[in-house]
Amino acid sequence: MTDKLASSALPELLASLPAWSLDPSATAISRRLEFADFNEAFAFMTRVALAAERRDHHPDWSNSYNVVDVTLRTHAQGGLTMKDIEMARFIERAAAGSGAA
Amino acid sequence: MTDKLASSALPELLASLPAWSLDPSATAISRRLEFADFNEAFAFMTRVALAAERRDHHPDWSNSYNVVDVTLRTHAQGGLTMKDIEMARFIERAAAGSGAA
Amino acid sequence: MTDKLASSALPELLASLPAWSLDPSATAISRRLEFADFNEAFAFMTRVALAAERRDHHPDWSNSYNVVDVTLRTHAQGGLTMKDIEMARFIERAAAGSGAA
Amino acid sequence: MTDKLASSALPELLASLPAWSLDPSATAISRRLEFADFNEAFAFMTRVALAAERRDHHPDWSNSYNVVDVTLRTHAQGGLTMKDIEMARFIERAAAGSGAA
Repeated sequence: MTDKLASSALPELLASLPAWSLDPSATAISRRLEFADFNEAFAFMTRVALAAERRDHHPDWSNSYNVVDVTLRTHAQGGLTMKDIEMARFIERAAAGSGAA
Repeated sequence: MTDKLASSALPELLASLPAWSLDPSATAISRRLEFADFNEAFAFMTRVALAAERRDHHPDWSNSYNVVDVTLRTHAQGGLTMKDIEMARFIERAAAGSGAA
Repeated sequence: MTDKLASSALPELLASLPAWSLDPSATAISRRLEFADFNEAFAFMTRVALAAERRDHHPDWSNSYNVVDVTLRTHAQGGLTMKDIEMARFIERAAAGSGAA
Repeated sequence: MTDKLASSALPELLASLPAWSLDPSATAISRRLEFADFNEAFAFMTRVALAAERRDHHPDWSNSYNVVDVTLRTHAQGGLTMKDIEMARFIERAAAGSGAA
């Protein structure tokens, strides 16, 4: 079981994820990624999908051509856990590899 | 170039797509699909992604675990064209194969 | 750690997987799947890829348009384990859903 | 219809694809790509799958964990065409983006 993060722990954890926004209720983080085209966007989504199955932790996300919007939260905890932070870190690494902005 | 569909043509075309809703401005159609799990949902998304590249016509869509929400419109025409109808028909066939509800 | 299956256990386990062939050295099982087209074949591969990451157990496979050849073995054990049997069962369920022959 | 390339045209075209080998009968080209892990390998395969559907030109390929072997030929022509050269160039760009070796 992954514990919900204390709100006092969030600032430091999120400082290393500057592209991510904390939602007003502090229960989710989200960011937008823009790729060169749909091909790159969907290959990125495939990387995240594979990582999500491995971790059993899935994003809420949407896609329109080259744009992917990702929101991470831990539904079972009603807020953020280290699973979300780790998935956000994976997304940063995958996005860096694909040249996303 | 694909022409925008006349609104008089929509009722008959949409009658064969009962799971799809026309948005209030009659410029897009959408439906929700529910799968057994994320594995089935993302494999369905892969089918649609491949078909979208082949047709150069891409959905606006979102996913949360086993649920996929799809919206189709032809951005360049500011409304619906036969490209949207044909993609909706493809989605129906793909969903039928995967047991989506 | 998953133990290598005793050769005495194989006949009963493989009886429920009639589409699969045991290789002559009894260290791998394989089958061919044929789909309607590349779209269906690659969506099936995506289902298997997601399941492989979840289980941390990956196939050796090849694809040519609508045909997918899959071989399963447990490299770390130099032979077959229950991981292979369970992946083969997953593939049977996924193939049944997609209408593969 | 895409014409089969004259063998006199191959040396110059293949000079810009140094990672690719021409098979002995000069009817196909192939290369191996190695990725950090299965996640990267399958996301690369997804990029190629999407490009293949867009071009209606599909590879013969195999995968084992982080390794992908790709062979390109134009079956309908019994040899190499510009479709193969263009797909090889796409694969080089996609592989460069993902850090494949």
